[in-house]
Amino acid sequence: MEFSSRLLERAVNEMSQLPGIGKRTALRLVLHLLRQPKEQTVALSEALKQMRQDVKFCKSCHNISDADLCEICASPNRNESVVCVVEDIRDVMAIENTSSFKGLYHVLGGKISPMDGIGPHDLNIESLVKKIEQGKIKELIFALSSTMEGDTTNFYIYKQIQDYKVYTSTIARGIAVGDELEYADEVTLGRSIVNRIPFENSLKS
Amino acid sequence: MEFSSRLLERAVNEMSQLPGIGKRTALRLVLHLLRQPKEQTVALSEALKQMRQDVKFCKSCHNISDADLCEICASPNRNESVVCVVEDIRDVMAIENTSSFKGLYHVLGGKISPMDGIGPHDLNIESLVKKIEQGKIKELIFALSSTMEGDTTNFYIYKQIQDYKVYTSTIARGIAVGDELEYADEVTLGRSIVNRIPFENSLKS
Repeated sequence: MEFSSRLLERAVNEMSQLPGIGKRTALRLVLHLLRQPKEQTVALSEALKQMRQDVKFCKSCHNISDADLCEICASPNRNESVVCVVEDIRDVMAIENTSSFKGLYHVLGGKISPMDGIGPHDLNIESLVKKIEQGKIKELIFALSSTMEGDTTNFYIYKQIQDYKVYTSTIARGIAVGDELEYADEVTLGRSIVNRIPFENSLKS
Repeated sequence: MEFSSRLLERAVNEMSQLPGIGKRTALRLVLHLLRQPKEQTVALSEALKQMRQDVKFCKSCHNISDADLCEICASPNRNESVVCVVEDIRDVMAIENTSSFKGLYHVLGGKISPMDGIGPHDLNIESLVKKIEQGKIKELIFALSSTMEGDTTNFYIYKQIQDYKVYTSTIARGIAVGDELEYADEVTLGRSIVNRIPFENSLKS
């Protein structure tokens, strides 16, 4: 692509560094900004820079936060004895949206994935083990995605903490609410039968 | 969406102002920036701000430029007597890529589109008419997209300049190179027969 302006070229090049945004899309976005009032670009630019420079991660759960402790960890209404282990902050947001969990979180920051060069020491696993050592946590819920990497990460953490008295659970896998059985994959359907629950429990939610 | 950080929320909100980028995509992009070195975000932020504040539009053709006159208008190797009318700078880039046009451009900045509230006075039509008044332009090539709005814009400009001695042409519509006839739409196929060209001409390119 040949650009008629260096400034434009630089903006497009920087924009196309973002995942899923190619040169063409970047050009479309940048030209859109040129048609909008200057203030919009300045606001976007400042918001990104300030966010990257000033954002903090919660000292306890590694969630993104403006303070040293995130709102969830700092709240007196949350149950400190149950901790849900998730991959990233989007999972925290998704679970918070359901309003069905009142414990705390622990954000790993990824999954163990040798293919991508991510080992256990690149994740926030050590601090999780330390928290468990302190003995306040009674239950650890694994809520990673159900992939090879997710399962590996679950198992690695499980091995690290098996000497401590902590009950470990994992979120239920099964047929999604509203789905038809005939279209479900075999593994999910099989698991949903093996891990069936008392009928009365299904009436609660 | 509830965010655990105001800074994050502001960045996501600004990002999701861009066309085709919803809140989820914006969050994905912003979290990606958080995982990258700070320098990348600073570079993106500066590039966008500087581009928006310092970029100029060519005084003659309204193309984006770093100087008062764009490189194409300033070049002594271009034919000043042929001007290609295009919608926006992306069309200039697309035509320049073909290396088959050696004249100048005139960027309208859009198409007449009453549905979107864009009238002739929102486009760079007046300056085009003034350039034609000066008498240097011999041929005007309409290269707008072949839509209702494109045709309306072509016709509006045509009416404005019909008192001046200038030959007007429009880019050829027809079957794309490499396409099969049976899949072509009727209008395009019909036009390609009506506007057939001497066989010898097709051997040239």
